[in-house]
Amino acid sequence: MTDIKHPTIDLAKDLIARPSITPLDEGCQDLMIQRLKACGFRIEHIIFEDTVNFWARRGTQAPLICFAGHTDVVPPGDLTQWHTPPFEPTIIDDHLHGRGAADMKGSLAAMVVAVERFVAENPDHQGSISFLITSDEEGPFINGTVRVIDHLEQRQEKITWCIVGEPSSTNHVGDVVKNGRRGSLTGDLTVKGVQGHVAYPHLSENPVHKAAPMLAELSSKSWDDGNQYFPPTSFQIANINAGTGASNVVPGELHVQFNFRFSTQSTSDGLVQRVESLIDSYGLNYDLSWTYNGQPFLTDAGKLLEAVKVAIKKVNGNEPELLTTGGTSDGRFIAPTGAQVIELGPCNATIHKINECVNCTDLIQLTDMYEGILEHLLA
Amino acid sequence: MTDIKHPTIDLAKDLIARPSITPLDEGCQDLMIQRLKACGFRIEHIIFEDTVNFWARRGTQAPLICFAGHTDVVPPGDLTQWHTPPFEPTIIDDHLHGRGAADMKGSLAAMVVAVERFVAENPDHQGSISFLITSDEEGPFINGTVRVIDHLEQRQEKITWCIVGEPSSTNHVGDVVKNGRRGSLTGDLTVKGVQGHVAYPHLSENPVHKAAPMLAELSSKSWDDGNQYFPPTSFQIANINAGTGASNVVPGELHVQFNFRFSTQSTSDGLVQRVESLIDSYGLNYDLSWTYNGQPFLTDAGKLLEAVKVAIKKVNGNEPELLTTGGTSDGRFIAPTGAQVIELGPCNATIHKINECVNCTDLIQLTDMYEGILEHLLA
Repeated sequence: MTDIKHPTIDLAKDLIARPSITPLDEGCQDLMIQRLKACGFRIEHIIFEDTVNFWARRGTQAPLICFAGHTDVVPPGDLTQWHTPPFEPTIIDDHLHGRGAADMKGSLAAMVVAVERFVAENPDHQGSISFLITSDEEGPFINGTVRVIDHLEQRQEKITWCIVGEPSSTNHVGDVVKNGRRGSLTGDLTVKGVQGHVAYPHLSENPVHKAAPMLAELSSKSWDDGNQYFPPTSFQIANINAGTGASNVVPGELHVQFNFRFSTQSTSDGLVQRVESLIDSYGLNYDLSWTYNGQPFLTDAGKLLEAVKVAIKKVNGNEPELLTTGGTSDGRFIAPTGAQVIELGPCNATIHKINECVNCTDLIQLTDMYEGILEHLLA
Repeated sequence: MTDIKHPTIDLAKDLIARPSITPLDEGCQDLMIQRLKACGFRIEHIIFEDTVNFWARRGTQAPLICFAGHTDVVPPGDLTQWHTPPFEPTIIDDHLHGRGAADMKGSLAAMVVAVERFVAENPDHQGSISFLITSDEEGPFINGTVRVIDHLEQRQEKITWCIVGEPSSTNHVGDVVKNGRRGSLTGDLTVKGVQGHVAYPHLSENPVHKAAPMLAELSSKSWDDGNQYFPPTSFQIANINAGTGASNVVPGELHVQFNFRFSTQSTSDGLVQRVESLIDSYGLNYDLSWTYNGQPFLTDAGKLLEAVKVAIKKVNGNEPELLTTGGTSDGRFIAPTGAQVIELGPCNATIHKINECVNCTDLIQLTDMYEGILEHLLA
C-alpha cells in the first residue's frame, strides 16, 4: 500500500469516505460547496423530497460551461468480497479503491480542483462556470438532474456546454469521449386470453399462442440503420411471463416487457406508433403502457468537442474515440435544453462492481484535461 | 334438510365422514373391505410407501370384471365458503353434500351395494368380480393403481372388463360414458442464450427472440385430425418465463412448459420426435425433458359397452354419449393391460369445487346400473 499526494486524490478520498448510497449524499455536496464558495461560486441548494442537489455558478455572462455529476453511489454488494472496505478509500498499486472511486467521486474531485486552479489563474475569465450536482443519478432519477433542469429552464438559465463526469474511458483516461447517448423506451405489454384446463382447449384461449407470431415479428424487425455516431436502434424483450406454474392450466394472460435503445434516426413517438400498429395487425386483445426513459442526444463537431480533443491530446496524447454506446446518463436530461453535452471521465471497467477502483494517474490527468477545457473555452 | 334411506346413500355418508385427503385413506378402504369380505371376496392389501390400496376378488375364473376407484379426495379449500362442513355428509334438496360425494365416494358406495345385491341373487355367478381401490388418484399417482397393475401383471392376473367410477355424467347419471381418454405428455424446454445488458445487445443473445418463430410454429401446428371418438390432438403452452425482472437485462434462458392431450391418431414417441425435429430446424441451443403422463386408450364396440348401454337404458332410459374428453383418470393405467375400460359415474359439475355434491337419485340409479352390468355380463 502506497500513498499519493495530490489535491484531486485527497478530495476523492474525502468523498469516498462518505457512504452516500443512493439517494443519500452524506455531506459530499457540502464538501464541494465549501471549496466552490471559497473561489467565488454562488450556491443554490435545490432539494426535492429525499434528494439533495446543488447548482453553483461563478459569473453571470454567457457562455455558461457546466460540470455535471452525482454524489450518490450504488450499494457495495457483498462486503466479504471486497479486498478493502468500500467506504475506506485505499490506494493499492496506484489505484484508488472504494465504492464511487470511478463512478464518479474521482471525477467530482477532478472538477473541483481543475476549477480552483483555473479560477486562480483566470479570476476574470470569460462567461460563467457552473456545477450541477445531484444525489439521485443511480436511483430512480426523478428528483435529481431532471428537476434541477426544469428549475433552470423556468428562469431561462441556459447551459452552453456541459461536461458530465461519467466514466467514459476504456483503457486510459480520454481514449473515449461519449458525445451522445441512445434514447431508452420501455413497453409493458399484457396480451389477454382466457384461462382454462388444458384438457378443454376449446373453452380457453391461449395468449402465448396468440402472441407468438407477433413476438417473432417484433423481435426480428429492423427499426433503423443507425448513423455515423449511433448503432442501429435495438429492441430487446427483457421479461416474459405466463402461466400458473401448473402444467395443466392454459394461462389467462401473457406479460412481456421490452426495451428500446434507440438512435437519433428514430423517435420515441415513432417507435410507439410502429409497435402498436404491428401488434394491432395481429388482432390481439392487449394493454400496453410505455415508460419514456430518455430521448437520444448527439453533440456533433463544435466548440465543445474541439476544446475536449485539444485538452486530452495535450495532457496524454490520446485522440478520443467518439461513442454513443453504453447505458444512459444524466446527459439525456441536459441535452434537450439545447446544450452541447459530452461525457469525459476515467475508465469504467470496475464501475458498479465489487472492488471498484480508479487509476490515480488517470484522475490527475483528468484534472488537467478539465482545466485545459476551461482554458480553451473561457480563458 | 331431509334424509334419504338407501344402503348406497348410507355407505356414501360413512365414506364422506372420513377426511381422506390425498394420499390419506382414513379407514375408507376398511369399510369397503368389511362389506366385500362378508360376501365372499378374498382381500389383498397392497401398500406402497404412503399409499394404501387393495385388490379384492370373488371367483377364480375368467372373465374378470373389475370395479376401479379411489378413496382419496382433493383438499376442501376455503372452509368458510362451504355451506356445510365438507366432512359432515349432509342431504339438502335430494343432494348429498361433502368432499368426495361426486368424486368418487358415491360411486364406491354404489359399487359395493350393487355387488352385494348381485352376489346375493347370483352366488354362483360366472367368471370373477374384483375391486381395485387406491388412495392415490388425486395425488402424484405413483404408488396407486399404476403399481397395483404392475403387481397383477407380474402374476398374469388379467382384467377383462373394467368399470371406473369417475363422475362421467353431465346432467343425469348415464348420459355420458367415457370410453377412452386422451394421452397426456408434458415437455419442459429451456432455450439458452447469453445474458447481458440491453445497452450492449451485441454482447448478449436473447433466447426469447431466438425462440419466438419456433414457438409461433409449434403453437399453430396441427398434430392430427382426431377420429370418431377423439378430438384432434391439442398442444398448449402452460408456462413461459424469462427475465430477471429488470427492464435493462437481456435474459440468459427461456423456460417453456407445454402439454399435449393426444388422440389415438398420435403416439407419444411420434409427438416427441416431431417436436424435437421442429425445434432442431431452428438451430437453437436447448434442453428438453419429457414427462409421460399416460397413453391414450379407447374401448370400442364390444361386450362391455353393450352391457353398459343396456343397463343404463333399463334404469333411466338414457342412451349414453360416448366421449373421450376431459382430464386423465386411472383408466389409463388399466387399459394398456388389454382390458376393456369404461368410466361410468355421477355428474361432474361440482367435483374439486367448494360445496361438492351429488344427486341422491343419481347414486341410487348408478347402483342399479352397476348391478345391471354385472347381470348382463356374469349372470
